[in-house]
Amino acid sequence: MKSMEQVRQGGFTLPGEAGYEKLTLEMAKLWGADVIRDSDGTKLSPEITEAGYKIYSTICIIREHNAFAEAHPEAQQQCFLCSDPRTAEGETLTIDPLEGYFTEQFAVNDAEDALPYWQVWDRTEGRPLPAENWSWDGERITVRGCVPYHRYTASFLCFRIWEEINMYNHTTNHWTSEHLRQLDPRNPAAWAYLQQWLKDWCRANPQTDVVRLTSLFYNFVWIFGSDPRRRTRFVDWASYDFTVSPAALRDFEREYGYALTAEDFIHGGKLQATHRPPTPHKRDYMDFIQRFVAEKAKALVEIVHAAGKQAYVFYDDSWVGMEPYGKYFASIGFDGLIKCVFSGFECRLCAGAKVPVHELRFHPYLFPVGLGGLPTFSPGGHPEKDAFDYWLHVRRALARQPVDRIGLGGYLHLTVGQDAFNEAIREMAADFRRLRELHSHGAPAGLGIRVAVLHTWGALRSWTLSGHFHETDGNVLIHINEALSGLPVDVKFIDFEDVRNGALRDTDVLISAGRQGDAWSGGDAWKSPDVVTEVTRFVYEGGCLIGAGEPSAAEGRDTRFALAHVLGVDQDRGEYACHMPWSFETEQKAPFPVCREALGVTPGIRLTDPETRVLAAEQEVPALTLHCFGKGQAVYLGGFAYSPAAARMLLEMLLYLTGKDGSAAGFCADPRAEAAWFPADETLVLFNNCEETLRTSVAFPGGTAEAELQPLETRFLKPADA
Amino acid sequence: MKSMEQVRQGGFTLPGEAGYEKLTLEMAKLWGADVIRDSDGTKLSPEITEAGYKIYSTICIIREHNAFAEAHPEAQQQCFLCSDPRTAEGETLTIDPLEGYFTEQFAVNDAEDALPYWQVWDRTEGRPLPAENWSWDGERITVRGCVPYHRYTASFLCFRIWEEINMYNHTTNHWTSEHLRQLDPRNPAAWAYLQQWLKDWCRANPQTDVVRLTSLFYNFVWIFGSDPRRRTRFVDWASYDFTVSPAALRDFEREYGYALTAEDFIHGGKLQATHRPPTPHKRDYMDFIQRFVAEKAKALVEIVHAAGKQAYVFYDDSWVGMEPYGKYFASIGFDGLIKCVFSGFECRLCAGAKVPVHELRFHPYLFPVGLGGLPTFSPGGHPEKDAFDYWLHVRRALARQPVDRIGLGGYLHLTVGQDAFNEAIREMAADFRRLRELHSHGAPAGLGIRVAVLHTWGALRSWTLSGHFHETDGNVLIHINEALSGLPVDVKFIDFEDVRNGALRDTDVLISAGRQGDAWSGGDAWKSPDVVTEVTRFVYEGGCLIGAGEPSAAEGRDTRFALAHVLGVDQDRGEYACHMPWSFETEQKAPFPVCREALGVTPGIRLTDPETRVLAAEQEVPALTLHCFGKGQAVYLGGFAYSPAAARMLLEMLLYLTGKDGSAAGFCADPRAEAAWFPADETLVLFNNCEETLRTSVAFPGGTAEAELQPLETRFLKPADA
Repeated sequence: MKSMEQVRQGGFTLPGEAGYEKLTLEMAKLWGADVIRDSDGTKLSPEITEAGYKIYSTICIIREHNAFAEAHPEAQQQCFLCSDPRTAEGETLTIDPLEGYFTEQFAVNDAEDALPYWQVWDRTEGRPLPAENWSWDGERITVRGCVPYHRYTASFLCFRIWEEINMYNHTTNHWTSEHLRQLDPRNPAAWAYLQQWLKDWCRANPQTDVVRLTSLFYNFVWIFGSDPRRRTRFVDWASYDFTVSPAALRDFEREYGYALTAEDFIHGGKLQATHRPPTPHKRDYMDFIQRFVAEKAKALVEIVHAAGKQAYVFYDDSWVGMEPYGKYFASIGFDGLIKCVFSGFECRLCAGAKVPVHELRFHPYLFPVGLGGLPTFSPGGHPEKDAFDYWLHVRRALARQPVDRIGLGGYLHLTVGQDAFNEAIREMAADFRRLRELHSHGAPAGLGIRVAVLHTWGALRSWTLSGHFHETDGNVLIHINEALSGLPVDVKFIDFEDVRNGALRDTDVLISAGRQGDAWSGGDAWKSPDVVTEVTRFVYEGGCLIGAGEPSAAEGRDTRFALAHVLGVDQDRGEYACHMPWSFETEQKAPFPVCREALGVTPGIRLTDPETRVLAAEQEVPALTLHCFGKGQAVYLGGFAYSPAAARMLLEMLLYLTGKDGSAAGFCADPRAEAAWFPADETLVLFNNCEETLRTSVAFPGGTAEAELQPLETRFLKPADA
Repeated sequence: MKSMEQVRQGGFTLPGEAGYEKLTLEMAKLWGADVIRDSDGTKLSPEITEAGYKIYSTICIIREHNAFAEAHPEAQQQCFLCSDPRTAEGETLTIDPLEGYFTEQFAVNDAEDALPYWQVWDRTEGRPLPAENWSWDGERITVRGCVPYHRYTASFLCFRIWEEINMYNHTTNHWTSEHLRQLDPRNPAAWAYLQQWLKDWCRANPQTDVVRLTSLFYNFVWIFGSDPRRRTRFVDWASYDFTVSPAALRDFEREYGYALTAEDFIHGGKLQATHRPPTPHKRDYMDFIQRFVAEKAKALVEIVHAAGKQAYVFYDDSWVGMEPYGKYFASIGFDGLIKCVFSGFECRLCAGAKVPVHELRFHPYLFPVGLGGLPTFSPGGHPEKDAFDYWLHVRRALARQPVDRIGLGGYLHLTVGQDAFNEAIREMAADFRRLRELHSHGAPAGLGIRVAVLHTWGALRSWTLSGHFHETDGNVLIHINEALSGLPVDVKFIDFEDVRNGALRDTDVLISAGRQGDAWSGGDAWKSPDVVTEVTRFVYEGGCLIGAGEPSAAEGRDTRFALAHVLGVDQDRGEYACHMPWSFETEQKAPFPVCREALGVTPGIRLTDPETRVLAAEQEVPALTLHCFGKGQAVYLGGFAYSPAAARMLLEMLLYLTGKDGSAAGFCADPRAEAAWFPADETLVLFNNCEETLRTSVAFPGGTAEAELQPLETRFLKPADA
């Protein structure tokens, strides 16, 4: 069905390694690489760069300029911090602002333009003190006129004097090398320097075809503490708090006509994590930063283009403000987006971005130790097993939406002697190329089910919450996103403004999944009657709702879930103290197969309608319910933990809710197998998601096929040829 | 040490039974009764009433007047109900207000003075509709001008046409007798009638010494539904919602200068349960009703006194407004308070009330079937075992504070052939009399530890939350109260106003135990800086705090627990999304013995201070912590489930916190035993709380005693005699 050449070669980026030139070229051949890249801390040798492969070179633009940073300390990046609260014993209190913070990461910024942004708060009363009530002597803040036994904090600006990724690697691996610093492109001198530096770099590296930016300017927020018992105090992969500086605050005020204060960032000491709905000020600030990042990134891309090279961006680390689904991403003009992937949702995140080339960086990296300390390429490791674990997630998503390239990262010499791993990657690369070719002839068949996932961030945070699966797996939504990433349904991510603007008019199934008050559930957005009314209308007129966890939960209404009347369940956190719940019996035969292992219990769930059907319960708490509302239906899930079986349940639930049968997209009788139907090539792609051989029939638009699948196999089956 | 007569006889109320005159007199002798009472539905015969015993006669004053109620239906008691929410499909909606309610309990009151109190609410917007938007045709409410897909409810007044205790017995036991109605003493005709009825009754019952009122006017709130799957829709043992009527609302408005509305009671459909902090309007209303109840009760007591009889009140059923710790209880002039008891806290509740005679009604009642369907006096039942289960709770409390009398209720003939039960009661009565005599010579020694339990209701709801232990055992506080009821410490119950007024100045240990937003934790009271400041001061200066569950939890502050800085722990419900917790190790040797079975986990508990000591944890969540704050200390308990071992842990915790040793009050080396020291008689009272024989030493102010205790034994030990 396709040339062997296409299966064997292309679309693969290999990390080359100087000193291992022969190995590099051998592995490039084995895996069918067409690109060779360098890795952090390595430099490719001419034997590699001149072997006829396209060359990627990695640049971390804001780092590696320590000499400039020494000369221009004011050009370093900054942030707000808040001191730990202290209780006043008397009327005077002294605060050492950095106490409890890692002083190798932070240095107080008490410059003339920074001090006016400092604040001291009475946290007992929740009010800032007048500036005349406190003073700074260069070491400590002295607060006067305290109310005894009130608690006080100081919010202050500080420089970040150690680039966070370097800091993490350094402290984790006990490196002794120089601490790398980072420059703020908002500083005019730094910005001029960086542009010139990039121009010079391009001139000095003629062999480079693609400048691989790792990544842009501002790291995700990662705040270290002084105490090893809590080395990481705060980490948020999508926070903007590391973009702050007096200059940014001044620019913002000039543009928006109002001033942000320290408290807009400190937010009662909690900061504004991505998992929580932002304040309106924070929303303004994010847009402000996104425009700045896009403008500066565009200037860099133009420099790269002017040098006759392409600019790809690696979406990790210092990516804040360049969200691929943000309003300004396309304007930057990147030639490619590279995303490291553990999961299916990350593939979809990359695949759906508006950029010419989409490339996935597979895991495991070629590092001695993998995720969570796995001994991947160390003694006792099974890198091929780790690779397959991730591949099972990734291939489902690749069947739904194509990407252009895949690749690896790390130190190639670690593959020596790892034949099982090397063969596994060869197979995956071949499967990837087959899938890519199928996509190139036409999209896989879908079920025509339009799913909208509703949360605070909407399209901006399509597919991801913030960070990787394992960083956000306490959130039910990431499990649902992961399941959706491989299902034959159309998925869009919408926010509450989209709901107001009619997004449900072309939606079949609405999903709301989160915890009360978080960004995924929606928090106070559910206090808005127009949102509740529109979702009520949507279901009443025949739409379907899937709610998981604490969907539509908010305070101040007669029910905790604003959609309790639609869901047929509500949550008791004590307000129903004296209200007896509806007794219920769990149905033994649910209308779709129930995967009990995937379910979970949200405490306090109770029925609001005796007609609500309970399909699963744990310890007398409903864990899966079904409720008719008007012409529509609503499912409630107390929890949802991703597994292939959980994804299958979600698929069957969607089929049941929409009254469809799965064969239009290919549907395996054995739930442990998954199918995709590519009509243009009349080809079924079959995945065996389990470690046993299985035999299944597959319904598809042409009829029914039979297949025996080896453990974990990917099968390309043309039923007409069978 | 005391006359056998005192041990054998007195302070015991026996339920006599007509037709079993011989048995009645036999059992009276066996148990040492000095009083014989009738029971509901029974009438004593002259052979009993003339046998030389004091006679109690039971009256339910507002019931048993069906002829009057038929003739004066407007004199029946009332309440507000709220229809279940209905979603509008178009601009008009009809509501059948009583749909879903038990129509044998309720009848709509649409009288001219009732209708103006009706309301229709748009629950989606949270606002009442103007009266011109809806109309009532005698059967249904028609709402016009609806917003499609908004939800609407109607709040309305209705008569309660079936007295709730009678209704419960009726529906549970499938009785077919006439439904008893109940009169509202606020109705002038009813009030005149009831007074005359009582005068006539007293005249017609010269043999009666004590009129035992069961109980006063207004039942606790118990709302039945039409569907057997939720027969009880709402039950609250301390709600005032069954006191409402247009007349009450008019009287209230006249007195307070503002009008209450239906919503003051309906409260978004949730009603205002006792477990939740009341609104200020509800507080006003409660005071208004308490004064009314006291005034009317006083008039009845005066009628009883005028007839040369005494008036005791049974504190259950229709007791609303006559709380024994309420401001007006003493003014009523009752001669005795009778409390049925399952638990120690109920003994203390009775024992501490300001009334001449305190009497306990023991469990099990002489009914065929006991609590929760136990076959107590039916085949397969073990009434002596049930009696001992309750006695173990009760005797601890009786050792701390005396009551004057005990007794039983029910049908005496059920004791025939129950020799083990009859002997058990004889023993308990003897132990009760011994304890009573010890108390009469002087109080038992205490540890001098002043404990204050802080919650919304303060002294008004001393010891109890609302109802019996098994009705409130989902609340951590009732477990703590039960433990405290038998400990040698001084206990007071305070509210937040008491804290402001200096109640902590004579407190050693403050206890706060509840769930966020409930009356026991305190809800929004913790938003008040002066309360937080005062508790902070209290601990900082050397006081001790025990917090359980979600103590001081409220929204809107930098920490969820307003006292997080004192407790050294806080709770994460998602706001700490990106804040790493302090890692901790659980101490293997706690400074006081830990009873793991008594502990529980509150989700999301995390340390706020690395110095917080974790004494127990479950699934990596701290379950018991200890934190130094200033000169004081704070304990946090994730949960606390009463058992004798749990009470022992609480005692040891209190000793540790206050730096005392337990011997001043008598302290058993074996934690399964409990002691009380009566200095006046130089007597130790020892309880074996387990079903095994044990030998323990007992430290007391005179030195150390040794004792071998039989299973569950109560031992009166005079060490000087040993």
